[in-house]
Amino acid sequence: MDQAQVSLPAYADVEAAARRIEGIAHRTPVLTSRTANARTGAELFFKCENLQRVGAFKFRGALNAIRALDPAQRSRGVVAFSSGNHAQAIACAGALEGVRTVIVMPTDAPALKLAATKGYGGEVVLYDRYKEDREAIGRRLAEQQGLAVIPPFNHPDVIAGQGTAAKELIEEVGPLDLLLVCLGGGGLTSGCALAAHALSPGCRVVGVEPEAGNDVQQSLAAGRIVSIPVPKSIADGALTAAPGPITFALMRKLVAEVVTVPDAALVETMRFFVERMKIVVEPTGCLAAAAAFTGAVPVAGRRVGIIVSGGNVDPRALAGYLG
Amino acid sequence: MDQAQVSLPAYADVEAAARRIEGIAHRTPVLTSRTANARTGAELFFKCENLQRVGAFKFRGALNAIRALDPAQRSRGVVAFSSGNHAQAIACAGALEGVRTVIVMPTDAPALKLAATKGYGGEVVLYDRYKEDREAIGRRLAEQQGLAVIPPFNHPDVIAGQGTAAKELIEEVGPLDLLLVCLGGGGLTSGCALAAHALSPGCRVVGVEPEAGNDVQQSLAAGRIVSIPVPKSIADGALTAAPGPITFALMRKLVAEVVTVPDAALVETMRFFVERMKIVVEPTGCLAAAAAFTGAVPVAGRRVGIIVSGGNVDPRALAGYLG
Repeated sequence: MDQAQVSLPAYADVEAAARRIEGIAHRTPVLTSRTANARTGAELFFKCENLQRVGAFKFRGALNAIRALDPAQRSRGVVAFSSGNHAQAIACAGALEGVRTVIVMPTDAPALKLAATKGYGGEVVLYDRYKEDREAIGRRLAEQQGLAVIPPFNHPDVIAGQGTAAKELIEEVGPLDLLLVCLGGGGLTSGCALAAHALSPGCRVVGVEPEAGNDVQQSLAAGRIVSIPVPKSIADGALTAAPGPITFALMRKLVAEVVTVPDAALVETMRFFVERMKIVVEPTGCLAAAAAFTGAVPVAGRRVGIIVSGGNVDPRALAGYLG
Repeated sequence: MDQAQVSLPAYADVEAAARRIEGIAHRTPVLTSRTANARTGAELFFKCENLQRVGAFKFRGALNAIRALDPAQRSRGVVAFSSGNHAQAIACAGALEGVRTVIVMPTDAPALKLAATKGYGGEVVLYDRYKEDREAIGRRLAEQQGLAVIPPFNHPDVIAGQGTAAKELIEEVGPLDLLLVCLGGGGLTSGCALAAHALSPGCRVVGVEPEAGNDVQQSLAAGRIVSIPVPKSIADGALTAAPGPITFALMRKLVAEVVTVPDAALVETMRFFVERMKIVVEPTGCLAAAAAFTGAVPVAGRRVGIIVSGGNVDPRALAGYLG
């Protein structure tokens, strides 16, 4: 795809998103930890999107995208294909706004996630992941029923919504030297980069991918979107094969660097969050903090924002990580 | 002891404490959960003292008591006897204020707690819990070295400090119909009751004890302090044999009711906090919420404050509760 044809959101879109989601999305707390500061020699500010509605930042983008629909589209509804936090965020935001949501999920999705999506009010359409293409199903449903497709990251309103996390963080704690963001498809990273560049111009924005799935790192190095086989990592919210044209173009402009961390560092970081900070963070949500703790990004002497992206980990899985 | 001889703190002392601890203690976040509201039919506001420094509300009272010392006493230092959150809070507050702290702990205290207390800068004095009396040791040290004894709950400055938790909560969310507080020796409950009565006059304050250790419930029923054998419960921060003269007198005046919950409800509540609210809460910290969830206190249709008192649970123990 020709990058020039992509229409990129700007910081004004993040501001508009902030107005749209105000009072519905949580203004999540920013936590600090003397122990984490002592360990890294930095001043760390943890923006806790694990305490966001639906347990992840995804609610911001989903709600913004749904509230940005025109009245005709609102009355028809939306469709999303996802088995993760985006699906639940769309279902929840749709229910709150009185907008019909259809979620395309694989027949072998965990029963808990199916139940949660239905619980939030989403209509679940199942597909066989070995025989059918979820995007094709989503597009067919969209055409047949006039639904708007809301993809998990490559969408201007989704990106602008995610950027409100960094906007709130910087407004609360002041300018930062560095902002570390958990990186999957790049919706959160590119949205937060828009906010950081506008509100804290000297701030370096660094995306953090799982070691096993560095599609964005490779893409930025190559100067074009590189697709990789779907990676295997416990960071199940960052298992993307490639960034999208919009998120890639934004990250190319606004992201200083992408680094990676191994799964073992995510487990150690989860334990730290439980033991010292008393919060539950899913493996994907540990990416940014792990980069600071492992030294993948030098942080000593700096004011560092860390986006903790989500907390949706099954209690039994968490028990396994802690045991 | 004659109740009339006890000098009771008032709401003005809570206000003074708030000024003393401002900017040092965290102003902890208030979280809400649609799931918890749906489950109880109430509007619940969780004041998250598990996210307080040292992982518990105890930091408020400890810091207030140390900052309230006169200069001569500050230069001599303080002594506390505790193996729990109060010890760590005193050690941490003392280190921050440059005040010497001596903590009397049993020789068989968990190595982790000893290390944490020393890590915060406390001087640990060990005693044999089967042969020696910790209060006697503490008083002897106090006399010999001119140290001020700061007890865990029966002290006006400690009580006033703990009351700042409810003050912040009500200032943030507005008047409440009901305030549920985790209840051990009564420092948190009586301090919060002072704040609630001043800031939200119609608010019923209810203390929640572990079923196995209802010393305050019995004391209020009897109209005098009743001592019970040290109870056995997973709520290890609420294993008191009796309230103190000051906390008892305040609770008698200000607390509408004391209810109890069984340990099984605490485990279920811990799981709920992890799974739905993404926070780590120690068993004692689950008492107040468990009273709402089990129906021990009817909450439907009401605006209810819930003090989540602490989050200091060993990760392996947490894994056991979740597994």
